[in-house]
Amino acid sequence: MDELDVFFNPKSIAIIGASESLKFGHSMTSYLLNSQFKTFPVNISKEEIFGHKAYSNIKDINEHVDLAIIIVRNDFVLDAIKNCVEKGVKGIIIESAGFSETGDENFIEIQQEIERIAQKNEVRIVGPNCVGITNFRNKFTSTEIDFDEVPEGGKISVIAQSGVLGNIFVDWGASQNIGFSKTITIGNKVDIDEIDMLEYLEKDPETSVITLYIEGVKRGSKFITTLKNMSKPVLVMKNGRSQIGSIAIKSHTGSIAGNDKIYNALFNQIPGVFRIDNFYEMFNIAHAFATQPLPRGKNIAITTSSGSLGSLACDLIEKNGLNLASLNESTINDIKSVSPNWVSARNPVDLGPSSFSTFRPSLNALFNDPNVDALLNIFAVPKMPLEKYNLPITPQLRDMKSLSKKTGKPIITCVFGSRWVFDYFLKHSEKYNISIMTQLNHAIKALKMMHEYYLKK
Amino acid sequence: MDELDVFFNPKSIAIIGASESLKFGHSMTSYLLNSQFKTFPVNISKEEIFGHKAYSNIKDINEHVDLAIIIVRNDFVLDAIKNCVEKGVKGIIIESAGFSETGDENFIEIQQEIERIAQKNEVRIVGPNCVGITNFRNKFTSTEIDFDEVPEGGKISVIAQSGVLGNIFVDWGASQNIGFSKTITIGNKVDIDEIDMLEYLEKDPETSVITLYIEGVKRGSKFITTLKNMSKPVLVMKNGRSQIGSIAIKSHTGSIAGNDKIYNALFNQIPGVFRIDNFYEMFNIAHAFATQPLPRGKNIAITTSSGSLGSLACDLIEKNGLNLASLNESTINDIKSVSPNWVSARNPVDLGPSSFSTFRPSLNALFNDPNVDALLNIFAVPKMPLEKYNLPITPQLRDMKSLSKKTGKPIITCVFGSRWVFDYFLKHSEKYNISIMTQLNHAIKALKMMHEYYLKK
Repeated sequence: MDELDVFFNPKSIAIIGASESLKFGHSMTSYLLNSQFKTFPVNISKEEIFGHKAYSNIKDINEHVDLAIIIVRNDFVLDAIKNCVEKGVKGIIIESAGFSETGDENFIEIQQEIERIAQKNEVRIVGPNCVGITNFRNKFTSTEIDFDEVPEGGKISVIAQSGVLGNIFVDWGASQNIGFSKTITIGNKVDIDEIDMLEYLEKDPETSVITLYIEGVKRGSKFITTLKNMSKPVLVMKNGRSQIGSIAIKSHTGSIAGNDKIYNALFNQIPGVFRIDNFYEMFNIAHAFATQPLPRGKNIAITTSSGSLGSLACDLIEKNGLNLASLNESTINDIKSVSPNWVSARNPVDLGPSSFSTFRPSLNALFNDPNVDALLNIFAVPKMPLEKYNLPITPQLRDMKSLSKKTGKPIITCVFGSRWVFDYFLKHSEKYNISIMTQLNHAIKALKMMHEYYLKK
Repeated sequence: MDELDVFFNPKSIAIIGASESLKFGHSMTSYLLNSQFKTFPVNISKEEIFGHKAYSNIKDINEHVDLAIIIVRNDFVLDAIKNCVEKGVKGIIIESAGFSETGDENFIEIQQEIERIAQKNEVRIVGPNCVGITNFRNKFTSTEIDFDEVPEGGKISVIAQSGVLGNIFVDWGASQNIGFSKTITIGNKVDIDEIDMLEYLEKDPETSVITLYIEGVKRGSKFITTLKNMSKPVLVMKNGRSQIGSIAIKSHTGSIAGNDKIYNALFNQIPGVFRIDNFYEMFNIAHAFATQPLPRGKNIAITTSSGSLGSLACDLIEKNGLNLASLNESTINDIKSVSPNWVSARNPVDLGPSSFSTFRPSLNALFNDPNVDALLNIFAVPKMPLEKYNLPITPQLRDMKSLSKKTGKPIITCVFGSRWVFDYFLKHSEKYNISIMTQLNHAIKALKMMHEYYLKK
């Protein structure tokens, strides 16, 4: 047993500051109290919370408590922690904000005191100033997650110095069929930091790709060694590239952003670590890593129903140091044999609004062309005919999946147009675990990074 | 009357190649035949199309025909055009593809022949290889548009050398509450090109901002003069930045991409013309231009419910040469007086998950601060509480609109998280004509370009 397991699979939980009023922590409290996890609400002035007996102090609970979640106001956090230590809890998640990030001497000192308590006692602490942890396998969470919406079996885990990645971007991922394994938000990092969690996730069989969002790193050289030893791809976002951004970070998690050039050089140096520009890109690329085979070469074939989007993809392919695959003569002939005379059978294969039946044999020819290492499928179809005639796309999705499996080549689909079309695509592809995006540059970057990762392995 | 009016407000229309079978042009045919526009189907082998008498030749129609839409196979286009000229139509939209872009000698020659016909006769031609024109005011369209979905009264017009902007990105825009005035796709530009249409839209009172997508320009110096004379902002996208992208363009619209550096220098040189990187960005920024006052200075105030997104916005502000506004002492005090002690009342104003009531007085203080020229509002809220408690956001939206109007300052909102949250925001903001995006960099770029445009005016 790893001592950090308590954060992912607690046997019993106390919520300090549990309340029925509509404020931070409300949904989480009502969820945990009605879950399979044995949960005790702690509130100094209430006898009952959502029909469960409330305790005025964690020490009053006469059973063992594994994990405490603290959501009281910053002034009351230190006392709560002392009580937790006396009670003998193994893990504490402090969600309350208002410590070193305020710049207020008094609260900086309190944070330092909490740090000392963690060092001196057999307790591990996550936070403060975070939304804690979610384990999507056993459905434990210390934040607001609607588990019914998140696809099951996801292999992406998240370590983040910001709460927004613990719930809001999970919501977003869920609405794109992106599944997760674990999310960990670490806030001001009074004890547990990204290094602890990287080590934990490295050993986690349910995680195949890690996304990491950091504002500042305290243990620099250990951070580098840990990243170097990872056997899983790590996608890193680090803000504070600018001077005013660095100041903003200081008042977000109290972190020192550091010199961005040094971070950049560092991330570029370590194979398997990739720097990412925004959160959407981070999760789209992670999803491609989690669901697609790695491209064995740089040669990309494109099928598209829009010539302009095809040529935009070409610009991105060149910019990212990949190649547009030179198709075999037999591939070109195969495509020509099923296409109207205006279809461009060169790469990008611009099928335009040609019948859906042209797509499947073309896809087959491209997957089986030895000059092709990966495919980009651009799906840009007006909503109206798709909706009106309920055009069948399942056969194409099935082909994509089976050809990808058979040939060991990845395929990423970029869907453009109405949200209805995107949802139509999502709904039909649910069981095929396909990589779907709305941005060409995310798709091309994913293929580039996945190929670099292939070379590393 | 402008001779190009026939493309936007035709009195009578013939669709050459009209058909009931489920192929390109089907939805448009069925729409026009049942619309207020007098429409005649032309089909060589059918007596009736969707219950309307069909003509085997446009010349058989014994009424005047204003506009012909051609959707027959490329081999039959030349004959169709000759018939149209004999019939005396004023405008022709050739949607059929398969001309110079194929690289086939035979079809290159046919395209040149069509060009000569346009020069010699009193007829104007749009296309070939496009989806033609939509006028969102009178609901005339030569492509598939679901007018019920597109917000009314939009002031954005589109000129594009690609069909994808005539329907697919309109679908996308509609699902973001972005409205349009006119879309014009010009394809291989046998006669009418972007210059003709820029001149037309310059005079159009229903257009306040123009988006332009081009793959290559034939009349270079006239293009520059026209852009310089525009009194409306023009957002330009031009692909073919790379060698392989340029080759792809050649087989899309048969255009010569040209040297990208020259285009870049050109666009940077002309005030009021802005180069854009992708289609989403293009429409988001156009929508901000169409709905928001111009920022009179560079000082941006940020309200956010996520510290990390706030600091990412700061990085982008610095990168784009804008400033983070230094707030007045009284503004800071106003915000502090309504906030819990952990709220950062400096700019970015990180309200975190504080109560919704904190937001409104803070917004009021920021709008009224003379050091603030524009606002960025970052809305990152988990889906669950919003959905469960149906939290009221209309008062905030109303404040945004009225404060913006009163102070003449723009506000852009970036919404993060579940699609449900975005839709919730959209639904409630419909009547306020608010600028809503999902990407921080689009918002910051919009503010930067709008301020540059303010300086030009």
